[in-house]
Amino acid sequence: MPGIVFDLSKTDGNGRSGAISTSRGEIRTPAFMPVGTAATVKAMLPWSVRETGADILLGNTYHLMLRPGADRIGRLGGLHKFMGWDGPILTDSGGFQVMSLSSLRKITEDGVRFQSHIDGRSEFLSPERAMQIQRLLGSDIQMVLDECPALPAPESTIEASLNLSMRWAARSKAAFGQQPGRACFGIVQGGTIAKFRQRSAEALREIDFDGYAIGGLAVGEGQSAMFETLDATLPHLPSDAPRYLMGVGKPDDIVGAVVRGIDMFDCVLPTRSGRNGQAFTWDGPLNLKNARHADDNMPIDAACRCPACRQFSRAYLHHVVKAGEIIASMLVTWHNLTFYQDLMARLRAAIAGSETKVFAASFQSRYGAANEA
Amino acid sequence: MPGIVFDLSKTDGNGRSGAISTSRGEIRTPAFMPVGTAATVKAMLPWSVRETGADILLGNTYHLMLRPGADRIGRLGGLHKFMGWDGPILTDSGGFQVMSLSSLRKITEDGVRFQSHIDGRSEFLSPERAMQIQRLLGSDIQMVLDECPALPAPESTIEASLNLSMRWAARSKAAFGQQPGRACFGIVQGGTIAKFRQRSAEALREIDFDGYAIGGLAVGEGQSAMFETLDATLPHLPSDAPRYLMGVGKPDDIVGAVVRGIDMFDCVLPTRSGRNGQAFTWDGPLNLKNARHADDNMPIDAACRCPACRQFSRAYLHHVVKAGEIIASMLVTWHNLTFYQDLMARLRAAIAGSETKVFAASFQSRYGAANEA
Repeated sequence: MPGIVFDLSKTDGNGRSGAISTSRGEIRTPAFMPVGTAATVKAMLPWSVRETGADILLGNTYHLMLRPGADRIGRLGGLHKFMGWDGPILTDSGGFQVMSLSSLRKITEDGVRFQSHIDGRSEFLSPERAMQIQRLLGSDIQMVLDECPALPAPESTIEASLNLSMRWAARSKAAFGQQPGRACFGIVQGGTIAKFRQRSAEALREIDFDGYAIGGLAVGEGQSAMFETLDATLPHLPSDAPRYLMGVGKPDDIVGAVVRGIDMFDCVLPTRSGRNGQAFTWDGPLNLKNARHADDNMPIDAACRCPACRQFSRAYLHHVVKAGEIIASMLVTWHNLTFYQDLMARLRAAIAGSETKVFAASFQSRYGAANEA
Repeated sequence: MPGIVFDLSKTDGNGRSGAISTSRGEIRTPAFMPVGTAATVKAMLPWSVRETGADILLGNTYHLMLRPGADRIGRLGGLHKFMGWDGPILTDSGGFQVMSLSSLRKITEDGVRFQSHIDGRSEFLSPERAMQIQRLLGSDIQMVLDECPALPAPESTIEASLNLSMRWAARSKAAFGQQPGRACFGIVQGGTIAKFRQRSAEALREIDFDGYAIGGLAVGEGQSAMFETLDATLPHLPSDAPRYLMGVGKPDDIVGAVVRGIDMFDCVLPTRSGRNGQAFTWDGPLNLKNARHADDNMPIDAACRCPACRQFSRAYLHHVVKAGEIIASMLVTWHNLTFYQDLMARLRAAIAGSETKVFAASFQSRYGAANEA
């Protein structure tokens, strides 16, 4: 029994729309996954996240293993029950956060030893432990442990890291084993070097995964380098499996990546920006701290269906952002997640209607024009 | 046309239940008013506050005059529209916050000059200005400006302050004028000195208000002194007008004050405690930070109707409180406001059923027994 079923209903150029069926419900693709780092999508109630149109959440293995602990979540009935979300959950492997958040990292063939950023305790993550944690969490889509070198780096460093990640991918897949109704995704690495990306994709295909992620991008290489890397990578991935671009991104990054054939995304941008008073609109991001909103009785977007736009003015949002009120984080996050889900819905409709390029061109020209943030 | 209509449907001993009719809806009494200081009940959406059972909110003149400004809120259509709450709103006069939050206060017969705690700007509040601000906000129940001396204080200080407050009360009432559908409440002062409280109550009756508040309590005098002051004050207030005990209080304070004949309350305790991980239950307050909750799959209160109790375990709430997640403030505040509204509903039912004393005794014995906070 396969972990998931990917039904690609329509392609338009390289753009793809379809659905991933899981035992916890369907994920319409291209999909955006809100990030629920510590068992909560920050400033949102889970049923409000569902209302925005999200089919699936992302959880962070690194954060959850440190607090409250994977064994504890397992004992309490798994992550879905714990956080009150009954839809599918994808968990990352912790590899990226170990590199970006922890200290005193020591990487060996076996795995990585590091110090918790919360209490300084020494922790160990190996491919086998990363998969065991994700199994304890009850994750529907589990990611292999990879190593993410900081870029820029010498080609030899990127190559050595890539080779280690591919050996870890094979061990992760073996540790994942057979879990009915659950899936395991590999992660393509290789920096922005096309030949490494190709080699990585081929190595992962050899192992055979339920889906393929592109890792190590959106780390400062710039949008054009990211798009070039996607163009060099995607032809080497199977067309009948989901493709997930990790940690991306800005609305225009997502549009460009969907045009190139990406099916899944996750990013903290809509939630983090929501807590900073930045609202996404079809005319570009809006900084609600800006004094010009103080007397503006119009909503962020009169056509938006979210509660922030249906019930409150920019003047109110400006006030609560400036006053540091929690409702500011709640409302602007809700708006941003709604915007992201509406963007995905429009992309799916554009692909279904064979209008992907028209939509992308129209989006980019409008979105870029009035950017104030 | 009277500002409001108070219908006292039942008394039981000194306890009273009824309803205040306003042009924006009915306020069932005894009533608890959640505090919406800066045009938001902290960590709550306004329709969620309504769901807890609240009929009326309190807004703070001091905070709103400083940010975003009463003139601005007036231009934008008033406080109700601004903050998305269409039920009645009571606003205080700013007097208490000037004393507790601002600096460099200078009190004269005319009013009080002070420095804003936000930006240090010099501001002035007089009885006339306090009423003008509340009118701009569109407040349904407006409070007179009073002076609140810090206790303990010499009797002569309390008396001088009381006399000033009574002169300000008369000026406030005159400045309120005639506002169809809106009410003006006086505030009894006089510390814990019975003869001053009586004199203050009589002075206010002479001016003639739509309702009478008891100010200057719950400032450290202790529960028994507070109850004694209520016993010395309430007989001197008209029985056919609402009586509002300002800034009170803990659940057991409220029960004791309702037994004595109070109709309205406001307090930051349920919301502030919610942001600190303290949950109110019928068995006393619960500190969710306590490690004993870390593996507890039971809700705060299995019989509670709030989302925190219907959807989440104590283990989850412990986790998000410890992790400092916004959802912790959202959920525990929601629970606490639900608890407070359910307490008021039970008090109203007890009075209606002539069981006020039985209910109060049973509440106090259970609530005090397992207090861990």
